[in-house]
Amino acid sequence: MWARIAEPGDRRLRDLDVWSDPLGTLRRVAGGDDPEHDRFRVRLRDVDIDHEMHIARRLGLRILVPGDAEWPGGLDDLADPPICLWVRGPASLAAVAGRSVAIVGSRASTSYGRHVAGELAVGLAEKGFAVVSGAAIGIDAAAHDGALVAGGTTVAVLAGGADRPYPMSNAALIDRIAETGAVISEMPPASAPTKPRFLARNRIIAALAGGTVVVEAGWRSGALSTARAAERILRPVGSVPGPVTSALSAGTNEAIRSGLATCVTDADEVAELVGRMGADLAPPRQVLPLVTDELEDDEQRVLSALPVRRRVGVDNICRAAGLSAREVSRALGKLALLGLADPGVDGTWRRSTTPP
Amino acid sequence: MWARIAEPGDRRLRDLDVWSDPLGTLRRVAGGDDPEHDRFRVRLRDVDIDHEMHIARRLGLRILVPGDAEWPGGLDDLADPPICLWVRGPASLAAVAGRSVAIVGSRASTSYGRHVAGELAVGLAEKGFAVVSGAAIGIDAAAHDGALVAGGTTVAVLAGGADRPYPMSNAALIDRIAETGAVISEMPPASAPTKPRFLARNRIIAALAGGTVVVEAGWRSGALSTARAAERILRPVGSVPGPVTSALSAGTNEAIRSGLATCVTDADEVAELVGRMGADLAPPRQVLPLVTDELEDDEQRVLSALPVRRRVGVDNICRAAGLSAREVSRALGKLALLGLADPGVDGTWRRSTTPP
Repeated sequence: MWARIAEPGDRRLRDLDVWSDPLGTLRRVAGGDDPEHDRFRVRLRDVDIDHEMHIARRLGLRILVPGDAEWPGGLDDLADPPICLWVRGPASLAAVAGRSVAIVGSRASTSYGRHVAGELAVGLAEKGFAVVSGAAIGIDAAAHDGALVAGGTTVAVLAGGADRPYPMSNAALIDRIAETGAVISEMPPASAPTKPRFLARNRIIAALAGGTVVVEAGWRSGALSTARAAERILRPVGSVPGPVTSALSAGTNEAIRSGLATCVTDADEVAELVGRMGADLAPPRQVLPLVTDELEDDEQRVLSALPVRRRVGVDNICRAAGLSAREVSRALGKLALLGLADPGVDGTWRRSTTPP
Repeated sequence: MWARIAEPGDRRLRDLDVWSDPLGTLRRVAGGDDPEHDRFRVRLRDVDIDHEMHIARRLGLRILVPGDAEWPGGLDDLADPPICLWVRGPASLAAVAGRSVAIVGSRASTSYGRHVAGELAVGLAEKGFAVVSGAAIGIDAAAHDGALVAGGTTVAVLAGGADRPYPMSNAALIDRIAETGAVISEMPPASAPTKPRFLARNRIIAALAGGTVVVEAGWRSGALSTARAAERILRPVGSVPGPVTSALSAGTNEAIRSGLATCVTDADEVAELVGRMGADLAPPRQVLPLVTDELEDDEQRVLSALPVRRRVGVDNICRAAGLSAREVSRALGKLALLGLADPGVDGTWRRSTTPP
């Protein structure tokens, strides 16, 4: 009812505290004459709650309200949570939201950004995270698509009605999302996606997911508003760095620079940021150690002093390395053992040309 | 003298505290029989200090020791400062170091990294910063080159002797640096650049400059050792983010992620990081504000409710925007004033198709 007559995020909803007693408040507003509430009465005459339920059923949508078992509790962290949600698709929102990441970014995007969004979504889906996004072209679509490809669950939060695929060019993608995941909206069926509704929609993405990652964003990107909404309710925010020469990484790099977001470069790091404390730690980088990394200072100096093309005596090595004869002999023994130094029968040495 | 007989960074130099009384310590070591000091006596027989001065003069090098007016005081922040420096070129090291940035990075580099290194160097040179680097191919060369192109001062710190251009492919660049800036080394003339000397050299780059910026670096890049050396002596460290798909940005992104470095994306931000507190603040981003950014909530909602292709009455707008007639009228007045809404003679409205 309220979802039909009020726009999301209207300050007056908060003043009225409609959430605690929606029906009572509605009766008071309908029967009152406060000019502040005129705006609600304008739409009230057109609303028919039975008809609303009928339409939802006919469109295959279910209506969730706070308190329902499937209502995702995270939404209640918002200062102005949605009054209800229209949901299309089999996924249980509460279950999905419990382990989920929002992957968002610019509509204008580069192949780099779409590639990274897809890779992150695949990696996170494989770790059992649901991917939440806004079904826009560009980064959003790549994220949904990656999750679907990996057989994961993905949720699209629309700015218009959940029955109304937007943008139309992503209609097929949105249908695929609804087959296994969920397409949701706080706006009633048939509602148009308007600019203020896009901004309001972003707060739902941020609150539904356990954390938000921005993949590509220009200076003015709406994806940053999602990141700020997540920060406002203390959810972890990640940002994917990109070339400083790319206008579409200007927003993500600045988010890192300003401390709004943590720098994340792969799904492991996102999982660590968003996932269960301790359980989703990113694995340490596998850097292949080189034999020469393990050498002590003196050994390193002797190795550097050994020529490759000719043999030299220990005296010579002592001067080149700046070490005593005793120190050089000890180091040569170790280097020979490692196959790095090549002793001659005449007591001369050279660097081994066939390292281990 | 000590520079001839000891390798940079040798722990025994610190144990002996050669810096406080170089000559006395030398006499004690030469006359003593501590096996720990055998390594120094090995080279001592070959050293002739008068010959050393003669060679330096002949090669056009000057020798600086701590306490000289030109000695860059920043070097004394190191736990193991150089014992002396051989300098080739007209720039006064002390003056140059006072306002300087080290720009370092991988030898293996991408055109992205070299482009950014050059742009940073140009921008910093224009702000009066000297650019310090290591004259290696790749990022180092691009940084020196950018500074020279902008008519700035640049200092190359070599791992081998200052008379010995390394790598040879950069010999022409190193000569150009020596014409207006300085080519320096803590190693005596003719010394070969060995692996341990490269690592030791990095600490001089870090200590000579007011701060260090890493432009591109793989996981194992020596450029990161320069960054860590700078961090160790509490100098600001910046790192340029790059594509998470690039192995050569793996080190720079991780430096940001781990908190070793601040994310920097242009010369302004580097100047702010390294420059004089308050005096070198990066200018705020120039984002062109859109007229529609300045609209209040109600006005935004009315604008979104206005169709472009047909005219509608105020009643209609009230329902679409979810606002009272009074609120809609007020908003329409403002929108008309801004040229965003187009009133008809019959009291109907449409969105203006020729925005201001």
